[in-house]
Amino acid sequence: MEPWRSAITTSDEKNIFIRGYDIVSLMNSASFTDTIYLLHQSRLPTEAERRLLDAILIGVSDHGPAAPSAAAARLVASGNRQSLEACVAAGVLAMGDAHGGAAYDCMNMIAEGIELSRHESISIQDAALRLVALAKSKQKRIPGMGHRVHTDDPRTRVLFEMARGYKLAGEGIEFMQALEESVREQIRPLPINIDGALSAVLHDLGFMPQVGKLIFIIGRVTGVTAQIVEEYTREKPMRIRIPVEYDGPPPRKL
Amino acid sequence: MEPWRSAITTSDEKNIFIRGYDIVSLMNSASFTDTIYLLHQSRLPTEAERRLLDAILIGVSDHGPAAPSAAAARLVASGNRQSLEACVAAGVLAMGDAHGGAAYDCMNMIAEGIELSRHESISIQDAALRLVALAKSKQKRIPGMGHRVHTDDPRTRVLFEMARGYKLAGEGIEFMQALEESVREQIRPLPINIDGALSAVLHDLGFMPQVGKLIFIIGRVTGVTAQIVEEYTREKPMRIRIPVEYDGPPPRKL
Amino acid sequence: MEPWRSAITTSDEKNIFIRGYDIVSLMNSASFTDTIYLLHQSRLPTEAERRLLDAILIGVSDHGPAAPSAAAARLVASGNRQSLEACVAAGVLAMGDAHGGAAYDCMNMIAEGIELSRHESISIQDAALRLVALAKSKQKRIPGMGHRVHTDDPRTRVLFEMARGYKLAGEGIEFMQALEESVREQIRPLPINIDGALSAVLHDLGFMPQVGKLIFIIGRVTGVTAQIVEEYTREKPMRIRIPVEYDGPPPRKL
Amino acid sequence: MEPWRSAITTSDEKNIFIRGYDIVSLMNSASFTDTIYLLHQSRLPTEAERRLLDAILIGVSDHGPAAPSAAAARLVASGNRQSLEACVAAGVLAMGDAHGGAAYDCMNMIAEGIELSRHESISIQDAALRLVALAKSKQKRIPGMGHRVHTDDPRTRVLFEMARGYKLAGEGIEFMQALEESVREQIRPLPINIDGALSAVLHDLGFMPQVGKLIFIIGRVTGVTAQIVEEYTREKPMRIRIPVEYDGPPPRKL
Repeated sequence: MEPWRSAITTSDEKNIFIRGYDIVSLMNSASFTDTIYLLHQSRLPTEAERRLLDAILIGVSDHGPAAPSAAAARLVASGNRQSLEACVAAGVLAMGDAHGGAAYDCMNMIAEGIELSRHESISIQDAALRLVALAKSKQKRIPGMGHRVHTDDPRTRVLFEMARGYKLAGEGIEFMQALEESVREQIRPLPINIDGALSAVLHDLGFMPQVGKLIFIIGRVTGVTAQIVEEYTREKPMRIRIPVEYDGPPPRKL
Repeated sequence: MEPWRSAITTSDEKNIFIRGYDIVSLMNSASFTDTIYLLHQSRLPTEAERRLLDAILIGVSDHGPAAPSAAAARLVASGNRQSLEACVAAGVLAMGDAHGGAAYDCMNMIAEGIELSRHESISIQDAALRLVALAKSKQKRIPGMGHRVHTDDPRTRVLFEMARGYKLAGEGIEFMQALEESVREQIRPLPINIDGALSAVLHDLGFMPQVGKLIFIIGRVTGVTAQIVEEYTREKPMRIRIPVEYDGPPPRKL
Repeated sequence: MEPWRSAITTSDEKNIFIRGYDIVSLMNSASFTDTIYLLHQSRLPTEAERRLLDAILIGVSDHGPAAPSAAAARLVASGNRQSLEACVAAGVLAMGDAHGGAAYDCMNMIAEGIELSRHESISIQDAALRLVALAKSKQKRIPGMGHRVHTDDPRTRVLFEMARGYKLAGEGIEFMQALEESVREQIRPLPINIDGALSAVLHDLGFMPQVGKLIFIIGRVTGVTAQIVEEYTREKPMRIRIPVEYDGPPPRKL
Repeated sequence: MEPWRSAITTSDEKNIFIRGYDIVSLMNSASFTDTIYLLHQSRLPTEAERRLLDAILIGVSDHGPAAPSAAAARLVASGNRQSLEACVAAGVLAMGDAHGGAAYDCMNMIAEGIELSRHESISIQDAALRLVALAKSKQKRIPGMGHRVHTDDPRTRVLFEMARGYKLAGEGIEFMQALEESVREQIRPLPINIDGALSAVLHDLGFMPQVGKLIFIIGRVTGVTAQIVEEYTREKPMRIRIPVEYDGPPPRKL
């Protein structure tokens, strides 16, 4: 079998190096968030970049036991008291296109909008207008907009203000705000949700679209683990009773 | 269905509160590691506690593509280019008893050793001796000791020194070092590995045994995501060819 | 990398052989259940063996949407409309020690009971008595007994009668019935549930304890797939609303 | 919480009904494959339909330890000796778009081709020609065609002949054969692989596109379970050593 090539981590008998930095120095001088940045960008972040990534990870860390990821993890924990990794994995699997996964689509849309603006020599605002019109005509959902609970997501404001304060707000944030404006005019007022906000900021920090979703997963896994511990310590096995209404075929003979 | 009780996170239309702290304040003033601590301890850490948890999470963040978690994630990524969550989940599932999971067993053993010392009014050293003798007689593996590559795990030293420097070293570290000594005398010299080291420190910080394993998962998920991005961006789908040697029944007629 | 040895399946450019049988012959002449038997026993089953395995697999195939495996799969499907494999995997992960996994523990207990009877030259009945007394004194749950809904599991009767009709009932069934009797006398009347019944039959068919749980998974995966299709085709994304009651710390300042 | 509606399985204290049939009758008179058909079509199959579904499930049941699903399951088993469900789930997660998942795309393409032929009043052959030309111009992969080992997949021939013998070959098979012809003319000779063959047959049996992939999963899970048992019983934990070549940044100072 051919060796697997990798540019991330290497180790010998005495040391481990992550992106070239020895792990002992990182443990002594860096934060976990620095290391997450390093793993994905191959360099350590500035103070401002680290603060923004911290804020994103905190912003998605938990949203209570009813979020699909937490609920799936707790359901599995309810029938599986021995395998913590099975519970965490079930939580991760619930982070699909409709929950958590929007960041990937949203970062792709941001890149597309900015590319359109450049290629057609139109403003970011006009590019956003066109993408909204297109989505509307195809009846497609626009990623990163709207929330089933929050009419104005408090996390979005914090992230955008922090990015501006650190002079790190770029075309990503500009595009998402143009999009919000276009959606309000052409469809109806919808807030930029946390997926949309972190997509804009991660775009401006130079992350790839896939990483948007992976950062969501890294953040949310921490809440999922706390939910699992709560299920294990507060609740009995198999305690969850879901009410069911059968409406299939009546009893019949073979 | 009865409501699910939870003491972790609650939200209304305008706010989200984690353990009572509103998320906007956390995003503005805390680090991701603070939030992980808060989720699991229901209070924010001191500077020293946060630094120790940072060091643990960095210490387990990645160990190259050949670690079972990274390899499983990359294998799945090789045949599954569309579902990032599937790749991450496969990596999590590889963190079983023989890889990553040792922290759970090890934290249980530390608690057992300290309890034994108290109950029998013997020293921590004598309690460690007894547990090693017992494991030896039953031919059971001792969790947290030995590594297939590192003869002296550099991460262990950093963690123990940092804990001492912060005056946070307690019976957990004392027990693990007594255990190392007993193993050297009764079996053969084996280093305390990262699982053993983080178990000792997390015990001294007051975490439950389950959380030992979950902290390992939280840390390692970050390396797994970087490995997946590398597989997606550097390698072709289905590129992995594993050499196989068939030694089953020869062709036979039905 | 050393080649992976395997005695299960081999293939060349033109053929695939499972346990030595070419796949074309199997497709033309065998049933799926024959193939499951072949994969795990390295020989094709007799008619009687196949009928028993069919009955076991049917017996565990589905138990409605509220079973943890089905509910976890549907929850994931609710937030993940694009990854069918993620939904199925979540269902599999819910099959832990408290749901589905009992077969592994139960087959181990059957083997232990029979071994005890042989080693101590006592009857199967006396061996069952001893194991029940031991479990009672340690307050341990006895695997394979009791059901939260069925007071007398209809599937158990069918399996035992079928095994007897085919002259395939052996010490496994004898032990489980002795156990039921001992539990009634020493604890309280509890029915042998489907996990207990399939464990007895699979023991008598010569399967290993691990395979008990794996057969449960193979059977239940089919119901899980039907539940996922129903979720995808009848329900909207994110439709599941779980009622939550927060009882954690009140709002507090950082 | 609103009750979950379901038309699949219901049960009371004494009985379980799958699609209206009581489970005892099914266990006594049906095969596992009958039950899989029943779960997904809400009626029992004819002899011919059952034989075809049997052949499909056998055809995908295993392909050796190097298939991504088997390899991922074995890797997880190598580091996780306690959680069988974790190993199976990892195998399921490897069944993505590039391995196993092609059936979903392929069944969608078959439906699209037949729809195109009807809507434009052209022959199935011309519809296939157009779809191949389109895929070629967009440099898109055509699902269900080609195999990295088999130049002529023996399983395809069996399935198509069996379907014809039972008079169950319809537009699905006609379309896939037209597609093979068009690919040969416009691109290069490529065999219809097992994904393409089962997609054609399942289309002709009236299954939905999603079910194509789920049937693959149901079949392959059986091989995955046998691979896991082999890993557990023949190999030591952590035995897998993957050769790695690091080509990232050289050691550097923080």
